[in-house]
Amino acid sequence: MKIQIINGPNLNLLGTREKEIYGDLNFEKYLDKLNKYFIDIEIDYYQSNVEGEIINKLHEVGFSYDGILLNAGGYTHTSVAIRDAIKAVSSPVVEVHISNVFAREEFRHTSLIAPNCIGSISGFGLDSYRLAIEGLKVWKK
Amino acid sequence: MKIQIINGPNLNLLGTREKEIYGDLNFEKYLDKLNKYFIDIEIDYYQSNVEGEIINKLHEVGFSYDGILLNAGGYTHTSVAIRDAIKAVSSPVVEVHISNVFAREEFRHTSLIAPNCIGSISGFGLDSYRLAIEGLKVWKK
Amino acid sequence: MKIQIINGPNLNLLGTREKEIYGDLNFEKYLDKLNKYFIDIEIDYYQSNVEGEIINKLHEVGFSYDGILLNAGGYTHTSVAIRDAIKAVSSPVVEVHISNVFAREEFRHTSLIAPNCIGSISGFGLDSYRLAIEGLKVWKK
Amino acid sequence: MKIQIINGPNLNLLGTREKEIYGDLNFEKYLDKLNKYFIDIEIDYYQSNVEGEIINKLHEVGFSYDGILLNAGGYTHTSVAIRDAIKAVSSPVVEVHISNVFAREEFRHTSLIAPNCIGSISGFGLDSYRLAIEGLKVWKK
Amino acid sequence: MKIQIINGPNLNLLGTREKEIYGDLNFEKYLDKLNKYFIDIEIDYYQSNVEGEIINKLHEVGFSYDGILLNAGGYTHTSVAIRDAIKAVSSPVVEVHISNVFAREEFRHTSLIAPNCIGSISGFGLDSYRLAIEGLKVWKK
Amino acid sequence: MKIQIINGPNLNLLGTREKEIYGDLNFEKYLDKLNKYFIDIEIDYYQSNVEGEIINKLHEVGFSYDGILLNAGGYTHTSVAIRDAIKAVSSPVVEVHISNVFAREEFRHTSLIAPNCIGSISGFGLDSYRLAIEGLKVWKK
Amino acid sequence: MKIQIINGPNLNLLGTREKEIYGDLNFEKYLDKLNKYFIDIEIDYYQSNVEGEIINKLHEVGFSYDGILLNAGGYTHTSVAIRDAIKAVSSPVVEVHISNVFAREEFRHTSLIAPNCIGSISGFGLDSYRLAIEGLKVWKK
Amino acid sequence: MKIQIINGPNLNLLGTREKEIYGDLNFEKYLDKLNKYFIDIEIDYYQSNVEGEIINKLHEVGFSYDGILLNAGGYTHTSVAIRDAIKAVSSPVVEVHISNVFAREEFRHTSLIAPNCIGSISGFGLDSYRLAIEGLKVWKK
Amino acid sequence: MKIQIINGPNLNLLGTREKEIYGDLNFEKYLDKLNKYFIDIEIDYYQSNVEGEIINKLHEVGFSYDGILLNAGGYTHTSVAIRDAIKAVSSPVVEVHISNVFAREEFRHTSLIAPNCIGSISGFGLDSYRLAIEGLKVWKK
Amino acid sequence: MKIQIINGPNLNLLGTREKEIYGDLNFEKYLDKLNKYFIDIEIDYYQSNVEGEIINKLHEVGFSYDGILLNAGGYTHTSVAIRDAIKAVSSPVVEVHISNVFAREEFRHTSLIAPNCIGSISGFGLDSYRLAIEGLKVWKK
Amino acid sequence: MKIQIINGPNLNLLGTREKEIYGDLNFEKYLDKLNKYFIDIEIDYYQSNVEGEIINKLHEVGFSYDGILLNAGGYTHTSVAIRDAIKAVSSPVVEVHISNVFAREEFRHTSLIAPNCIGSISGFGLDSYRLAIEGLKVWKK
Amino acid sequence: MKIQIINGPNLNLLGTREKEIYGDLNFEKYLDKLNKYFIDIEIDYYQSNVEGEIINKLHEVGFSYDGILLNAGGYTHTSVAIRDAIKAVSSPVVEVHISNVFAREEFRHTSLIAPNCIGSISGFGLDSYRLAIEGLKVWKK
Repeated sequence: MKIQIINGPNLNLLGTREKEIYGDLNFEKYLDKLNKYFIDIEIDYYQSNVEGEIINKLHEVGFSYDGILLNAGGYTHTSVAIRDAIKAVSSPVVEVHISNVFAREEFRHTSLIAPNCIGSISGFGLDSYRLAIEGLKVWKK
Repeated sequence: MKIQIINGPNLNLLGTREKEIYGDLNFEKYLDKLNKYFIDIEIDYYQSNVEGEIINKLHEVGFSYDGILLNAGGYTHTSVAIRDAIKAVSSPVVEVHISNVFAREEFRHTSLIAPNCIGSISGFGLDSYRLAIEGLKVWKK
Repeated sequence: MKIQIINGPNLNLLGTREKEIYGDLNFEKYLDKLNKYFIDIEIDYYQSNVEGEIINKLHEVGFSYDGILLNAGGYTHTSVAIRDAIKAVSSPVVEVHISNVFAREEFRHTSLIAPNCIGSISGFGLDSYRLAIEGLKVWKK
Repeated sequence: MKIQIINGPNLNLLGTREKEIYGDLNFEKYLDKLNKYFIDIEIDYYQSNVEGEIINKLHEVGFSYDGILLNAGGYTHTSVAIRDAIKAVSSPVVEVHISNVFAREEFRHTSLIAPNCIGSISGFGLDSYRLAIEGLKVWKK
Repeated sequence: MKIQIINGPNLNLLGTREKEIYGDLNFEKYLDKLNKYFIDIEIDYYQSNVEGEIINKLHEVGFSYDGILLNAGGYTHTSVAIRDAIKAVSSPVVEVHISNVFAREEFRHTSLIAPNCIGSISGFGLDSYRLAIEGLKVWKK
Repeated sequence: MKIQIINGPNLNLLGTREKEIYGDLNFEKYLDKLNKYFIDIEIDYYQSNVEGEIINKLHEVGFSYDGILLNAGGYTHTSVAIRDAIKAVSSPVVEVHISNVFAREEFRHTSLIAPNCIGSISGFGLDSYRLAIEGLKVWKK
Repeated sequence: MKIQIINGPNLNLLGTREKEIYGDLNFEKYLDKLNKYFIDIEIDYYQSNVEGEIINKLHEVGFSYDGILLNAGGYTHTSVAIRDAIKAVSSPVVEVHISNVFAREEFRHTSLIAPNCIGSISGFGLDSYRLAIEGLKVWKK
Repeated sequence: MKIQIINGPNLNLLGTREKEIYGDLNFEKYLDKLNKYFIDIEIDYYQSNVEGEIINKLHEVGFSYDGILLNAGGYTHTSVAIRDAIKAVSSPVVEVHISNVFAREEFRHTSLIAPNCIGSISGFGLDSYRLAIEGLKVWKK
Repeated sequence: MKIQIINGPNLNLLGTREKEIYGDLNFEKYLDKLNKYFIDIEIDYYQSNVEGEIINKLHEVGFSYDGILLNAGGYTHTSVAIRDAIKAVSSPVVEVHISNVFAREEFRHTSLIAPNCIGSISGFGLDSYRLAIEGLKVWKK
Repeated sequence: MKIQIINGPNLNLLGTREKEIYGDLNFEKYLDKLNKYFIDIEIDYYQSNVEGEIINKLHEVGFSYDGILLNAGGYTHTSVAIRDAIKAVSSPVVEVHISNVFAREEFRHTSLIAPNCIGSISGFGLDSYRLAIEGLKVWKK
Repeated sequence: MKIQIINGPNLNLLGTREKEIYGDLNFEKYLDKLNKYFIDIEIDYYQSNVEGEIINKLHEVGFSYDGILLNAGGYTHTSVAIRDAIKAVSSPVVEVHISNVFAREEFRHTSLIAPNCIGSISGFGLDSYRLAIEGLKVWKK
Repeated sequence: MKIQIINGPNLNLLGTREKEIYGDLNFEKYLDKLNKYFIDIEIDYYQSNVEGEIINKLHEVGFSYDGILLNAGGYTHTSVAIRDAIKAVSSPVVEVHISNVFAREEFRHTSLIAPNCIGSISGFGLDSYRLAIEGLKVWKK
């Protein structure tokens, strides 16, 4: 089973930025934990601040991987293009958020990408990623 | 560890109603599976079609249980009263949806209760409940 | 042929409340008339001020009755849960209003339940119920 | 008793157009049935695709007929002028729709003409017209 | 000096319809008065309930008359086509209303045609027409 | 003089819930104080989390009591049914809020029930109830 | 017959300010013309840039004058207080605008004061004032 | 204890203006009653139709008085400046309305000043002022 | 191949009206050019300012012609009835505009008829009609 | 004559993605056809999923090419930056869409880029590109 | 060079009011600093809480001063009248705010006056005034 | 002191594009002037049309520079991702605009990035950048 994690804008600063919201663990260290937890799953990781590169990556992996975890960060609320990319590929995509986006500013309550994802998980901190993989494992069966 | 599952309106018809959206398993059978999966956790189940009884249950368990899974069904989008109840209790509440509510009618894209929950999981079918418990287990640590 | 009439909040006060809008006949007396008019139809009557109990009743009769007349009163404009219940059951539901709701306050112009009913009748006073039954009789053929 | 039926734009195509919504009976044939059903009522029929001609007809019959059935088609949602015409005449007007307009596109959920009608019937197919006449008969007493 | 008065939908019923708003004088009689008041002005009168015929009349007189008084009735609030016709012609057009439209329903507060008129007069009863002609006389100088 | 106090959802948790907003006194103790303050007034108290039961209580007391204090909690902002119930009864109803609802989330700034109450008092903590009774005493004269 | 003209903010700059919209005549000179035109009418003039002083003037003259012409300038679109003042006095008030406000920015299309005036005249340049007096003369009869 | 009452625009006409809404007692006479009722409290009264003068008065008394009653009239719904003034001073301010503003036009349902007041009382006629002082007395303790 | 061109309101004035937007060629002359360009296609032309007559024409040709070019002018943005007529007929309809409607007033950015057309061409001046025919030729294959 | 085609996000997947909307031909093959059709025109092709690279390309060719065809895909509805780029260059830009965007989700009905294009063609499948070039050829003359 | 600073409502309380937003320096002391910094510029200062007096001052200085700094406080978001006054005068006006208004309540994000100013500076504390003068110095050249 | 200037989309065309709005000086030449003006400050310059690269640059310099000037061009109004990036870094960011964005199209009146900047300067042409540096110099003290 192969899973791609795609992190969008500003998530490269995890562990540095706004720790009261996002925690103080950087994503690479968390990825190590994740790999140890799911030893039978190949987990690829990609981060970009560029909307179009996220689309490129979705195209690249979206016809062969067993699932994609997408935390589109700020693009979640503004990108029709990523929304279309998710629909265009065949791999199931799960929307992931570290924080509970619904408890923050109003413009974060609308997700343009959610309608084309199979599901959405938010608010569990970095553990949201683990839950999404758990969900995909069952989903594939 | 004690967890309460609260299901809102029409979820008593699971397995009967709109199977293309909700699947054909009724919740009681699923609950058996869940109990076997989490043998060290006490899982209580409650369902009501009455908004106020959901609030009563939240009050009853919300100061002693380790976590609450709330699928408020149609009340998700209309109930300020349940939203307030979640804030009033001390147990962490996870919002759970069987279907991907964001892929359905527009009025289902707004959740009045989400801001007071710790997190939200939707779209994984009945497996959404398992994922929520998985999330709560880590959250409590 | 079996038909269920469900009246929502405040309709227990018919004949007492705002007579210039609703008339001065109480519903029980009207029901007598209705029974005499449709001698070959079994008409059951239920009234509740509780949203969830209306849902309970819809579930109870909605898989066996030949039709349901629903005057959801104030819940017409606010209840996603009743809307979902109508969709969940298999009996045809007709939306009924005594007054012409479109001639009253703006918030009464939106019906959340109408999209899941087969049709809607409003403005004929209590006679709206008779017309709804007339309609259901032809609909069933 | 004299009743005028006024059908608005595109209703001349009944039986031809979008049969899954409107059925395959044309209105003239239905009118025959209606005349046989209500032998003691004189039913006149008029159809026009022109908004202003519908107003003309309302003016012509609206001070002498015992009731008017108006299916204003697409003008239902856009015509202040027809709304004003209904208010200007003295005959009671009933709004009639073949389909359940509330289950279709959002712009069909708003009726500009309903506030000036005595009542509204929708969703019973062509039988909506018969119900409207049934309603008017009682209304006049 | 030649002036055209164009009255829109339902204004043929003046003196009959809603007298508490529009008064009990019919327009033909008022026209006599107007002709006597402005002996040196040729005043033509046209009324139609058909939006497109009002446009036809605007085209017909709009390149030769010294001014046009337009009471578009209900089309005031809905007709882009009449708005465009006013812009297309060269004669100055004055918007006239018998009642104070701003004191009535909210949808009557928006005039689609006003931006292309030279001015607007409302609320003076039938006397609004006289004032509009008075205004046009000065305007032309 | 007989007065009914009706408290809506979550107000049973007063003294427990969000003390920085609602204070730490529970309502029963406050009721004792109130009874001592108004010795000549019979004050009945009712609390329910169920929208429909609040309506039932309004019906029960609304034709015989001299006044009703209604703190509808979260239902204040969403319940057309309670609004209708207030209009249906004859006793004067005062809207009461412990906190200044206008200083909280935007959705709390709209009260669906206020238009049918005689007046509204908010922001004085539990003392809002005393002021409402003071107001009713003068109102009845 | 006594008439008060009240000009609101920035109208003291008439003849100086934005001549392409307002013309190059200052109001005092126009007032001379007006006085000569209506020799039998006493016309008082008042201008203020202060919202509250406009209200003071309305109170001062609004119970004894035969009519008031109010060009409230920018306050037209924002002042509930002036709207209330117009309703509070007994003299008839006519809303006057020099330019066609409907052909300018969108926020100028809404008049808060119009609903309480007897009528409204706009777009005839300074001649709008003369027309308003003409209108009032007939109105008083 | 020193309390300042500030009345906004048009409230100088109390007893004269729209008696069916505001009653027929003028404020000065009511003030006498109020002074007799609260003999141990010094009550100062100020009325102005000018928004800025209301702000001036708030500044003048807002750092020394024990409480302020503010009936901002029409400015309630439009004045950010008064809202800011209330926040700027240290004395507690109570919003007071004679009529039930929520039962009137929609634009009166929004109060810009309420969020910065400690509480709000409306609908009890002039007695609203007495209740506000009663509330302030307890508040100060 | 038979194609019908239908031009809506004010397009009879082409070559006369607002030349800076629509050019100075009248449509009849352009039609000559079009006929010479497409010698193998029969092109019929119809213009009306009446909404209902446009619908009549759509009904008349809409079951036999190979394609329809519809420039509905101002009705583009307001006519549900024409929208319905397009859906009701079987011939493919192309929406055509001479000017770039998106570069003009905001209300011209919404097309009610576009969803039922096969495609839309705007902004190429009269050449938009030629392009639409070019498109229909390929579409039919 | 030199023309640049710019395709935005996800259009690299043409022939693969959502074939029921976009057809099963990939763009490179279509380009061959286009080159053969317009032998005297040099047609350059560029595709990018990156908003900023589309802007770069517009800058690069926008001062020397005879025309640009822009199918901005999902950026059509969200990109002020591309809108500004179109305005900044001197070459005429035509908006092109394969599908009829007006018949899809509501958010696709608004085009931010259309106001700065000379025209817009949508709904003719890949043939929309050919029509756009046909249009540009005439436009340049 | 002569420059006028105009401060609007509540800015007389600078140094006293909400120090965490506005700092603890009063404006008079800051003015001394400013005068020393710009020794070759005559800086006049005016403050008023009255909207109309701000307009008066703009009229008084707006045809002779080299520039005006306007901090309209709460009137920034509500005053069409001040907006018009800025347009009416010939001196360039700079909008100044001490705090970053965009980081505060939503209603402070809209400035009615900004469109008629030459530019806007906010968020630099009292130093915003110095920057505005720096800007005006270059602007005048 | 080290300051980074970041210019967003289309600003590479300065001096070429829409000179009536942006002037005819290109930014590189202006930068020379700026460097000479602030000899003690190191000013770095970066321009990109790619949203994500602007974010990259903000991350790169945002933890070490003394200040950042950001003119995000069209992304100002649409980019949640850049807004988040500004919050994520520690250097103070000033929003800069050459033109007065508030005097242009309505969609340019909303800045998504402003709430996370320390302040905002717009409308002074290229001099806006100098003013921003002046402001930052004082801010840092």
